[in-house]
Amino acid sequence: MSLTTHDIVDDSVQLDASPAAITARLAGRFAETAAARDLAGGTPKAERDLLRGSGLLKLSIPIEYGGLGANWTDTLGVVRQLARADSSVAHVFAFHHLQLASVRLFGTPAQWEPWLSETASRNWFWGNALNPLDRRTIASRVQGGREFSGRKTFCSGALDSDMLLASAVEDSADGKLIIAALPTKRAGITLFEDWDNMGQRQTDSGSALFERVAVAEHEILSSPGPLSSPFACLRPLLAQLIFVNIFLGIAEGAVAEARGYTRTQARLWPASPAAQVSEDPYILGHYGDFWLTLEATRKLADHAAARFDAAWAEGLALTEAGRGEVALAVATAKVTATRGGLDLTSRIFEVTGARSTTAALRLDRYWRNLRVHALHDPVDYKVRELGDWALNGNYPKPSFYS
Amino acid sequence: MSLTTHDIVDDSVQLDASPAAITARLAGRFAETAAARDLAGGTPKAERDLLRGSGLLKLSIPIEYGGLGANWTDTLGVVRQLARADSSVAHVFAFHHLQLASVRLFGTPAQWEPWLSETASRNWFWGNALNPLDRRTIASRVQGGREFSGRKTFCSGALDSDMLLASAVEDSADGKLIIAALPTKRAGITLFEDWDNMGQRQTDSGSALFERVAVAEHEILSSPGPLSSPFACLRPLLAQLIFVNIFLGIAEGAVAEARGYTRTQARLWPASPAAQVSEDPYILGHYGDFWLTLEATRKLADHAAARFDAAWAEGLALTEAGRGEVALAVATAKVTATRGGLDLTSRIFEVTGARSTTAALRLDRYWRNLRVHALHDPVDYKVRELGDWALNGNYPKPSFYS
Amino acid sequence: MSLTTHDIVDDSVQLDASPAAITARLAGRFAETAAARDLAGGTPKAERDLLRGSGLLKLSIPIEYGGLGANWTDTLGVVRQLARADSSVAHVFAFHHLQLASVRLFGTPAQWEPWLSETASRNWFWGNALNPLDRRTIASRVQGGREFSGRKTFCSGALDSDMLLASAVEDSADGKLIIAALPTKRAGITLFEDWDNMGQRQTDSGSALFERVAVAEHEILSSPGPLSSPFACLRPLLAQLIFVNIFLGIAEGAVAEARGYTRTQARLWPASPAAQVSEDPYILGHYGDFWLTLEATRKLADHAAARFDAAWAEGLALTEAGRGEVALAVATAKVTATRGGLDLTSRIFEVTGARSTTAALRLDRYWRNLRVHALHDPVDYKVRELGDWALNGNYPKPSFYS
Amino acid sequence: MSLTTHDIVDDSVQLDASPAAITARLAGRFAETAAARDLAGGTPKAERDLLRGSGLLKLSIPIEYGGLGANWTDTLGVVRQLARADSSVAHVFAFHHLQLASVRLFGTPAQWEPWLSETASRNWFWGNALNPLDRRTIASRVQGGREFSGRKTFCSGALDSDMLLASAVEDSADGKLIIAALPTKRAGITLFEDWDNMGQRQTDSGSALFERVAVAEHEILSSPGPLSSPFACLRPLLAQLIFVNIFLGIAEGAVAEARGYTRTQARLWPASPAAQVSEDPYILGHYGDFWLTLEATRKLADHAAARFDAAWAEGLALTEAGRGEVALAVATAKVTATRGGLDLTSRIFEVTGARSTTAALRLDRYWRNLRVHALHDPVDYKVRELGDWALNGNYPKPSFYS
Repeated sequence: MSLTTHDIVDDSVQLDASPAAITARLAGRFAETAAARDLAGGTPKAERDLLRGSGLLKLSIPIEYGGLGANWTDTLGVVRQLARADSSVAHVFAFHHLQLASVRLFGTPAQWEPWLSETASRNWFWGNALNPLDRRTIASRVQGGREFSGRKTFCSGALDSDMLLASAVEDSADGKLIIAALPTKRAGITLFEDWDNMGQRQTDSGSALFERVAVAEHEILSSPGPLSSPFACLRPLLAQLIFVNIFLGIAEGAVAEARGYTRTQARLWPASPAAQVSEDPYILGHYGDFWLTLEATRKLADHAAARFDAAWAEGLALTEAGRGEVALAVATAKVTATRGGLDLTSRIFEVTGARSTTAALRLDRYWRNLRVHALHDPVDYKVRELGDWALNGNYPKPSFYS
Repeated sequence: MSLTTHDIVDDSVQLDASPAAITARLAGRFAETAAARDLAGGTPKAERDLLRGSGLLKLSIPIEYGGLGANWTDTLGVVRQLARADSSVAHVFAFHHLQLASVRLFGTPAQWEPWLSETASRNWFWGNALNPLDRRTIASRVQGGREFSGRKTFCSGALDSDMLLASAVEDSADGKLIIAALPTKRAGITLFEDWDNMGQRQTDSGSALFERVAVAEHEILSSPGPLSSPFACLRPLLAQLIFVNIFLGIAEGAVAEARGYTRTQARLWPASPAAQVSEDPYILGHYGDFWLTLEATRKLADHAAARFDAAWAEGLALTEAGRGEVALAVATAKVTATRGGLDLTSRIFEVTGARSTTAALRLDRYWRNLRVHALHDPVDYKVRELGDWALNGNYPKPSFYS
Repeated sequence: MSLTTHDIVDDSVQLDASPAAITARLAGRFAETAAARDLAGGTPKAERDLLRGSGLLKLSIPIEYGGLGANWTDTLGVVRQLARADSSVAHVFAFHHLQLASVRLFGTPAQWEPWLSETASRNWFWGNALNPLDRRTIASRVQGGREFSGRKTFCSGALDSDMLLASAVEDSADGKLIIAALPTKRAGITLFEDWDNMGQRQTDSGSALFERVAVAEHEILSSPGPLSSPFACLRPLLAQLIFVNIFLGIAEGAVAEARGYTRTQARLWPASPAAQVSEDPYILGHYGDFWLTLEATRKLADHAAARFDAAWAEGLALTEAGRGEVALAVATAKVTATRGGLDLTSRIFEVTGARSTTAALRLDRYWRNLRVHALHDPVDYKVRELGDWALNGNYPKPSFYS
Repeated sequence: MSLTTHDIVDDSVQLDASPAAITARLAGRFAETAAARDLAGGTPKAERDLLRGSGLLKLSIPIEYGGLGANWTDTLGVVRQLARADSSVAHVFAFHHLQLASVRLFGTPAQWEPWLSETASRNWFWGNALNPLDRRTIASRVQGGREFSGRKTFCSGALDSDMLLASAVEDSADGKLIIAALPTKRAGITLFEDWDNMGQRQTDSGSALFERVAVAEHEILSSPGPLSSPFACLRPLLAQLIFVNIFLGIAEGAVAEARGYTRTQARLWPASPAAQVSEDPYILGHYGDFWLTLEATRKLADHAAARFDAAWAEGLALTEAGRGEVALAVATAKVTATRGGLDLTSRIFEVTGARSTTAALRLDRYWRNLRVHALHDPVDYKVRELGDWALNGNYPKPSFYS
């Protein structure tokens, strides 16, 4: 199957379609090739171009800057729906919006207003080169700014991007984190096509090399700067909320595909007391459990998104307690989505059976995608944070992971 | 400690207090004696009289009939808060309101309007003598109505009640269920003080004997009758929602008491890497899990109550699908509350330790109360219903348990 | 029901009976009154006297000292079988044998040989006054020995005992633990009937007061002394193995009683696809899970007992590694018995139903007994020890709890 | 890396080595390429030839027929050890021995004695074309025997085999199952290289086509015939025991590889209270759980193998009850191995972290291999069988899956 940007861009109905309708259509397209692309790996170029053509890259950009003005609840809803079909594409799409949020949270209006406008008008796709745990990229002071040099891993969506959010560590005693927004094509940046992973295979989360990359002062997000206020500390919570919705989308996609298989292809086990597979008591028990997992996760995810939107609206007036409440809601949803999703993506095979393990279906990709993505930061320490709240009344300490 | 109705009735501040404030005060009172009364069993006469004096018996009665006009979300919120302190009293209180809902759903306005008005004005307390699974009480046709004769079990809150909702089986081929509202003191009704159970020890869920009890036609809820419409089929869903909120309240109460103990009395295990018990990594892990369980249950319980209120507002316009959606939301919350609560009320001891098992604290009552109450109908079949929805798109079939 | 020692002592068949036959008979007796005695609490005097009359108090005593010469596997088998019927009596019986093992491990032959002989000939029942975590009892040096003074908690089986194993802390800089064997009636020892707990209600695990209790040098187990060698460090492992077998016995007893109820009294749920309760798919699923839990625990418990017996036979030749292997086997069985038993004793109600919660049956005692007993030391730290082995190859560090 | 049969056959030390030593060496070889071959799929020709050269193809053949005379416990021990390294090769190796057992159980000595002798002397490798659930291959009566025609799926290890155990359905009213032993190169048999699956990728469990394949009477196992006696009914139990040991081997292999990674490459999470990753409390908790899972499974697997060997030794004297006890032990081990292994192979990533998901390691293959293999027959129905025993005292009904 050949998908081109043309399919969507030239579609006149598309132009007036709601984000929801566009998303539904895109998700349908992505689903058709998701298994094949999981096998292939590499950059989902056609799908990225479909996203470019869809208008959804400006989904979260306020209307006054040329965007669609969606709030985070709606933006995350699009992420979740895309993840049902293809969690790799959903991830790079979501992180594009995360980068746009980051410049608003860490930079000055004089910085981010033009970036948002240009993103909307030029259809920029932002990629990630921010990795606080990988401290090998160094920011040296030079005339007029900095120079970034060194390697970095896990640069999701950097390949085929137009702009990058990049981090480096200052070569000073305190090793402060410097974050800058840069054109991807800036001289000295090399992005490697070296992402080959057991899951999330089309996120291009490979490595990058910075060789004396010039970074101007006005490209550096130093005022107010990273995690500079409760409001700025919403950035990691948005990242975590993205995970929540991707995990949930994966789980929903897994159950949806399993359901189709059970209803059309699964066979009744000879020892079953039921007349048909759809009435088998244990099959029904599993589906009941799936539903329970999905519903609990959905309610917690929706609640966290609503809290996030409310906190976002407060801006710099957001208090530590206000940010803390969002952090709790997000962490609660994240742990629930992780645990439930891992169980469910492994358990679906109990309701589809041996023949569903054929590589043609690649039904294992749901578990692989979730298993990989859920390792971004340890679930044990998220539970510990929630325990510190439940027992001691301490909010999670803001960091790039909490 | 001696509690008398006087304490509240004569309290002038009380008269103007909000239901939430009244509930908080009552719950505080109940908590002081809950452990002692769990040991004693029997009728919580003082607490029932405090409820009578509090005005909360008219909480769900519409304002036009002299009530406080609370919706079901708020009424269930009061149930939940009372259950944190005392799940027996919460149960009989909640079932009082369930009976009031039942007469509205199964009877004619000419029947229920005066019953609601008199309940509000005379402060009636309704009890339960409706048990569809116990078919030993027979309704024989007599001049002007029926005669109820036979035994019945699980008559929660019938002792010390003013009115009863009572069921009997017609002595006809189809054995139709007859439900009537009767004054508790009606001749021929004997209520036994024979409830002695491992949990929910003050619910008076003992047995009753009906000996040729006269039941007038106008006391029988035959028009539109039990489960006669999707709207009438909301009755078992309200009963199930009551369970949800009682289970959740029990779990919340258990964690609250455990937390107080951990913070003030628990000891650090010698092998712990932490400096104090509040920082022990495994203790924190348990509290994190408790929080996750409670939050998921709260979100599902609140969602189900909101759905229920919306369906209630539709009245006879409620469709089968509309009722089905409520049934799914309620069943989802019920299973989650059951599983989570059972795990949590058993696990709290991991964070309180050996010394907390003294009978003086009776910390086991949370598990005992929940364990008993959760057996009202089997959780396995609730999960199966949810599976039938998730796989086959079938709504739960209305019955007195679904 | 009145049970007297006479019933057994005068029974001529009894005199020749095997320990297994005697145990079966005793367990049958204990089971008849277990529920009633769980309600009553207090000292199980009649049952203790039946044990005295049964000859089983000398079960683990070598034949050359007048005992029955059972190895630990067989002794623990008796404990397990008694625990199926009554885990309180099983506990004090097992700890009697633990004290006999302790004097052999911590003392000189000149000390323990007469103690064992007299126990066999005089039918002594040993009780526990050893609690390393309660450091309030002080051992002061006096002419010819020590004086013990102070309070102590959790003195299981001390009441109605003939001999006590008692600990105290030396009033010196290092606060060394002193352990002595004393006649229970020694002047200055007061045992309080103050054990009132949510479970294990007839273990008399109450408190004691030592007031200038004279302790002679020859009563102190100082050579080789507590935990003085890998062999001496078998003592806490025997204590832990006793817990394993009590937990397992409780779980087996719970399933046995549940099974009898399901087969004779449980009712088929109306929505079940089965024709009778014994064929209900979910009921069968629960029983399958019960079996899985019990079998895994049995195999691990038996393996640990065999390892323990082999290590015991090595005596002072036992190496740290040899002791470490026993510790791993015991900890593995203990965690499995704890987790499995807690789940199972709470879950049995799913297969017995609402009516089985009547206080007459006291079916909750299985959970209460196990819940209480399992708090002796935290399961989380047992798991951590096993993890330290699995990851780092470190054996559990010997202590009174590992 | 290139492995040839030559490496082992010419190795003079090898010739005298014990099966355990040979297995250890083979497993080491297989492990080196397991990840690469998981990617490649297809027939593990080099590894099959190493097995041929190792002498292990005659492991279970009695000494009097030229074999090594290993009992089933030891044979399964080899399977388990191979499965730690490569569960695909372990599977085809184990099923080779299963076919040898099948001819002994279903055929006459006049049939199986020469087959075993020739297998030993000619180093035959047996493959599987027996699939009772796929009834498309028909056995028609012809002069001197039968003709097999039709398709068949899941023919593990048939490619590159020397002999096949093949099933067909008689074209008669009762559709009786016919099983025959045939040379793989028999005219009319086509084996397809069409196995492409998410796991167990080198088991060649693809499809076969039989086109008028001549089957002589003396090749048919009709006397005593399939499942003809409790002894003959041991065949499916051996198949299930093979699964047990493969599942356990996979789980052990997963933990071993995870352990190596944690110890050498995993990074301490910044929020950890520990000084190094090997002391992180949650990492230790996971390893503790892994150990608990593995130990319980090992004990149950060993017990089931011992029971199986004892039953095998009884031969036709084996009773239904005797066979039933083996069936229970095997089913208990199978469910435990399945549940524990699935949890563990998914959870290892919690102790290895995000970087361990690189495709270079293919750490996901443990979960994929187990997930696929565990679907051979539904675990839910194994649990149900155990429940039918625990509640009703019914042994599992013999079939090709129980």
